Amino acid sequence: MTSSVLIDRQDLDFLLRHVLDTDALFGRERFAEHSRETFDAAIATAQRMAEDLFLGHYEKSDREEPRFENGAVRVIPEARAALDAFGGAGFMASSHDFDEGGMQLPHVVSLACMVHFYAANVGTASYAMLTIAAANLIQAFGSAEQWQTFGRPMLEGRWFGTMALTEPQAGSSLADIATMATPAEDGSYRIRGNKVFTSGGDQDLSENIVHMVLARVSGAPSGVKGISLFIVPKVLPDGRRNDVALAGLIHKMGWRGTTSTMLNFGEGGDCVGFLVGEENRGLAYMFQMMNEARINVGLVATMLGYRGYLHAKAYAADRVQGRPIGTKDAAATPVAIDQHPDVRRMLLTQKASVEGALALCLYAARLLDDSETLADTAARKEATDMLGLLTPVVKSWPSIHCLKANDIAIQILGGYGYTREYPVEQLYRDNRLNPIHEGTTGIQAQDLLGRKIVTDGGQVMAVLCKSIRETAAPMTSPLARQLEKAVQTLESATAALRDCIGAGNTEKAYWHATSFLESFGSVVVGWLWLRQISALPGLDADAAVFASAKEATARHFFETELARAEWELGRIQQDCRSGR
Amino acid sequence: MTSSVLIDRQDLDFLLRHVLDTDALFGRERFAEHSRETFDAAIATAQRMAEDLFLGHYEKSDREEPRFENGAVRVIPEARAALDAFGGAGFMASSHDFDEGGMQLPHVVSLACMVHFYAANVGTASYAMLTIAAANLIQAFGSAEQWQTFGRPMLEGRWFGTMALTEPQAGSSLADIATMATPAEDGSYRIRGNKVFTSGGDQDLSENIVHMVLARVSGAPSGVKGISLFIVPKVLPDGRRNDVALAGLIHKMGWRGTTSTMLNFGEGGDCVGFLVGEENRGLAYMFQMMNEARINVGLVATMLGYRGYLHAKAYAADRVQGRPIGTKDAAATPVAIDQHPDVRRMLLTQKASVEGALALCLYAARLLDDSETLADTAARKEATDMLGLLTPVVKSWPSIHCLKANDIAIQILGGYGYTREYPVEQLYRDNRLNPIHEGTTGIQAQDLLGRKIVTDGGQVMAVLCKSIRETAAPMTSPLARQLEKAVQTLESATAALRDCIGAGNTEKAYWHATSFLESFGSVVVGWLWLRQISALPGLDADAAVFASAKEATARHFFETELARAEWELGRIQQDCRSGR
Repeated sequence: MTSSVLIDRQDLDFLLRHVLDTDALFGRERFAEHSRETFDAAIATAQRMAEDLFLGHYEKSDREEPRFENGAVRVIPEARAALDAFGGAGFMASSHDFDEGGMQLPHVVSLACMVHFYAANVGTASYAMLTIAAANLIQAFGSAEQWQTFGRPMLEGRWFGTMALTEPQAGSSLADIATMATPAEDGSYRIRGNKVFTSGGDQDLSENIVHMVLARVSGAPSGVKGISLFIVPKVLPDGRRNDVALAGLIHKMGWRGTTSTMLNFGEGGDCVGFLVGEENRGLAYMFQMMNEARINVGLVATMLGYRGYLHAKAYAADRVQGRPIGTKDAAATPVAIDQHPDVRRMLLTQKASVEGALALCLYAARLLDDSETLADTAARKEATDMLGLLTPVVKSWPSIHCLKANDIAIQILGGYGYTREYPVEQLYRDNRLNPIHEGTTGIQAQDLLGRKIVTDGGQVMAVLCKSIRETAAPMTSPLARQLEKAVQTLESATAALRDCIGAGNTEKAYWHATSFLESFGSVVVGWLWLRQISALPGLDADAAVFASAKEATARHFFETELARAEWELGRIQQDCRSGR
Repeated sequence: MTSSVLIDRQDLDFLLRHVLDTDALFGRERFAEHSRETFDAAIATAQRMAEDLFLGHYEKSDREEPRFENGAVRVIPEARAALDAFGGAGFMASSHDFDEGGMQLPHVVSLACMVHFYAANVGTASYAMLTIAAANLIQAFGSAEQWQTFGRPMLEGRWFGTMALTEPQAGSSLADIATMATPAEDGSYRIRGNKVFTSGGDQDLSENIVHMVLARVSGAPSGVKGISLFIVPKVLPDGRRNDVALAGLIHKMGWRGTTSTMLNFGEGGDCVGFLVGEENRGLAYMFQMMNEARINVGLVATMLGYRGYLHAKAYAADRVQGRPIGTKDAAATPVAIDQHPDVRRMLLTQKASVEGALALCLYAARLLDDSETLADTAARKEATDMLGLLTPVVKSWPSIHCLKANDIAIQILGGYGYTREYPVEQLYRDNRLNPIHEGTTGIQAQDLLGRKIVTDGGQVMAVLCKSIRETAAPMTSPLARQLEKAVQTLESATAALRDCIGAGNTEKAYWHATSFLESFGSVVVGWLWLRQISALPGLDADAAVFASAKEATARHFFETELARAEWELGRIQQDCRSGR
């Protein structure tokens, strides 16, 4: 286990083994051939590859963003070298079957590999993230032939994937997608329409690009029930260039290494698309990809914040400035800034956010594994439902709090942090996308309140609250008592919101949706902090420094963010219960 | 009065006339020749000039940041044209005497002019801001000859000024400044040292650059009591080039139109500096410039947020997306996004922050006028002291909350907001400097807690609280009652912090310094919102829409940010009173 600028490896191992009990996975049939050693080897390979091939061109991929030159999009060559190595090492297929050439790793371990690439260079790593998600989508809902034709080359890292959903008039509102698909005689479809913000929509990194496109078959019902999913490759299986044209590159605030494109499908009337699954079920399929993408977005947000935290921490230990508060002697020796209370507070806030968010995202991945590999059907369903409830939180909470952590990193570095000589401003700019794409925070809040909390009568939420109480009950720590109180407040606020909507006062309820989402998330992250505390006694004696830092961080989180969330939930409840 | 993308002119006029009673200034000798018409004419000229000459190259000044080419720094020519016009119209001298060629405007009106330039193009306007502040510094503490030689050309806009404080090892800790000054036989000094982050430290915009440099005279005491202030021009009065060399340009996250430089003074052993005032009193002098700069930083932060708010508001009224919450019919007509509760909430939060911050900054400028032009000595001193107490708040609160407003603007524009096709991401990047320069938020918090609150025994704070209560007492609005409660909580938290420090528990007290500063600011801004509400009845009947929007915004501010501040102050008090 070597130290890293990307992540605290001791923290990652602690979360996997002691908090999320990845050892238990060896007992499941799918992972029977794995061991601690195979997990660790995959993670160590990812760390090394991320440090050697992804980290070095992080700044360059921002400075020299992809350009359209001589009829083609040019991405810096370092990105191709990194992605070729990524694919060559098998990371595109890390969670796929051995039979498919995959590593058959649990999702939680696959993501424990991905964290390194996300932290090192999100612009380059995104091509992989999108490809993995697109391949999973075809595997889940496409035909065996589609999988052989399109999925396999993606697993091998030769072809890359995209998700082409957004249109100029249809962003948050996918119901308004207007791209049309007309059946052709050979069983394929002809696609016509315009997409915007398609990440990786064009590049010179892979042999082919497989677009997963939402479109309407002529005559389909309006709204979300008339949307179908198509595979639209840039190059057709017979080697012909498909009628997909780049209409323009979009220039972003950050995350510049990943192209963001405007694409025209079928301008020449000859864009071939292949229907995935059945007509009009496309949005339901796409939600699988979006849910996977949302966990990954949460994790990217986490890792950008995490790396910024590690950078700020190292800087603050090194940068000498000022004297301890109250020192009157001008000749006294100056101290490192991590001795100043305000800086220590900022570092602790960062640590609480990024380590809490990492626990949250890995817990979500663990739920995904449970939903697929637990023996018991009811337990699998419970994991599936819990993941559904938590997905908007996993996507949003890190996007809010780890972005704040990046803001704090800039502040700790001061004037230096504001310059492009240090990575913290780029980490901030890159992270600023996460509250927007794959459903804005506002859309996630609507999903949580309108779909996940209200419609199922609160059953999954009740399971969550029960789990939280089960963690807290046997613990003697005052933090456990605070969390029990917080859960109760969360339940009361949830009930008040539900009643508010039930009484037809939807405006008022949705006014609070985003702050409810954030505070809900803080209770869940508080739970994961308590689970960390309860796991500390399992550590070796030589982890005492690590353990006491974890305890101090948890206390800080409970005193500040969890306390704020309790207050906010109380305020929401009060407003929903008021007659106004 | 024409509408503007830079500021709501109705809001600005309301604040000046109805909330801050600028009419009262005509009764003072200095402003006796002024009238509403002369004030309005100056503001209208500023608005027109900012829109015509500053706004147009806002994006370009970011994209084509200043470069070092062929031995000189090149700034885009549009900046020079804009600043030439600015100087030509007399804005460098807007608050100076008629005799000096100035407009003799009150500071509050001068700043009401400046807001337009700050909103339109902070990168270009900063050269003016620095020049005005440097000229004021020479006027206050320099000799008559220095004023003639260096100050006058700055007022005329031919020479620009800088403030050269920070050194590689001395940022927040000015006590550690190491630049040396050695007396020469002609009465001038020879300067030797390195400065970093000097804004406007080199450029091709003005005939000369006048650096206001902090340095130590050989043999001076260590610490802040051994710092002297020098005028160090790029070109000496006799036309020779002074020994000031550009060591490098610093590349920033934003605010790119203003050069940020590393300067070497006296590499060739022949850098001539002219002492301002007396030796070893330099830091005290510089504080005048810093205090002026701090008000301007608050105002810049405000205006970047304000313009972002206006942009987001216009976008949200125009962008059609989605249907009202609860609409089941997929064929229902989509609505503009400002109909969605979450977007309305975000817009209201922006409005509360930027209009509140504008009131705060203009109130500070009004205090500056009072401190200079009130007839009564005691009243002048009270204004001076109040401004001193509020300066860290004026600098920081807008830097926190109007930056958040810029973040919200990006969020409202969604994917578009994240692109460089819209100004909101640049406004954010530009604003991100404000919590850092001229003393970070942490430094301001230390100033408020350690100097402004504790050392004077709380006398000025008591005056502030009395003023707040005087506003609230006659009002029947529930907001007035909430503010009275908030002031009491502020007083209790302040007392607890003071006792904590008194008991030697400085670590704990300073742990809370930044959040105390922010919450203190929210109470003060709450007061200014209440003052706005109390001024609404003075408006004409045709301002009903304006007035009801102000009321709704004040309510929102009290329900969210002021309530949060009360909670936070309670938490601080509790922790300070606890035995831990």
